[in-house]
Amino acid sequence: MNQVVNPGDHVIDATVGNGHDTVYLAKLVGTTGHVDGFDIQPAAIKATTSALDKAALSHQVTLWQMGHEHLADKIATDQPIKCAVFNLGYLPGGDKQIITKPTTTLTAVKAIQERLVTNGLIILLVYAGHPGGATEAQAVLDYATNLDQHQFQVLQYQFINQVHVPPYLLAIQKR
Amino acid sequence: MNQVVNPGDHVIDATVGNGHDTVYLAKLVGTTGHVDGFDIQPAAIKATTSALDKAALSHQVTLWQMGHEHLADKIATDQPIKCAVFNLGYLPGGDKQIITKPTTTLTAVKAIQERLVTNGLIILLVYAGHPGGATEAQAVLDYATNLDQHQFQVLQYQFINQVHVPPYLLAIQKR
Repeated sequence: MNQVVNPGDHVIDATVGNGHDTVYLAKLVGTTGHVDGFDIQPAAIKATTSALDKAALSHQVTLWQMGHEHLADKIATDQPIKCAVFNLGYLPGGDKQIITKPTTTLTAVKAIQERLVTNGLIILLVYAGHPGGATEAQAVLDYATNLDQHQFQVLQYQFINQVHVPPYLLAIQKR
Repeated sequence: MNQVVNPGDHVIDATVGNGHDTVYLAKLVGTTGHVDGFDIQPAAIKATTSALDKAALSHQVTLWQMGHEHLADKIATDQPIKCAVFNLGYLPGGDKQIITKPTTTLTAVKAIQERLVTNGLIILLVYAGHPGGATEAQAVLDYATNLDQHQFQVLQYQFINQVHVPPYLLAIQKR
């Protein structure tokens, strides 16, 4: 993220969760940039609001308590986006039954792709170990694998010698 | 490499090729460090010697014109190694019939593992697109996947949406 996001950029935290990435992104974009953060869970919005207040970064962030599949309704079509981050799966410390899903995740990814500037980056941390995770991980991987290489460069980072199922990272960069 | 290699370190270029990595490593280890470089091909040793002379870095590098499977005979068992780099496949601009092979590659990797310091790193750039490449790529991947996660962390980086077969990178880090 810090290689791509500069002060003044408009970025998206598609799953604010406990707000760690939101705070980090808000610092990177600075007072002249903006972060739109989405999360369907009240607990996530509350935790992130608190984390942003504590860091005095609330003024450069808009939080939306709704699923990221509604992103296209909230972010103007002509709003250039520099970076978007997805932490898939469930909210750490929250209800493990409430998970991101393939269709809504990919709806949000596509909406961001339409707004992504050249060299803009979508980062997905993909968990496959929880119930429902493997299905989503496969859907996201299939989608990313089939992106036109002339339009997007897709890099996968994964730990390959772990007994348990570690998350992997997908980086989709617009050419 | 630059996150791991510091001045004074002892490192290995297991396939010096045209000398790009050798020069880069020699700069990183500085006058107090050392690089051992291996390549079976005279043309590679010649090109690397020339590149090192040009950069005035020859004094911190020893070049060995032999396959990297002989590494254990040339590097003392008690010599701590901080980093080793393999560019598998054939020499760019050279004879495409002369390629690295699974057995000799893994012999060298194992010899380095025995000398690797904590947080030390083996980096392999693995090409699968040339004749013989897929077999080697599979052997290296199988080997790395089965390394004990308590001893080594193995990270794979790969482009996943390319029509042609791109190289992938394996990073084996000692815990």
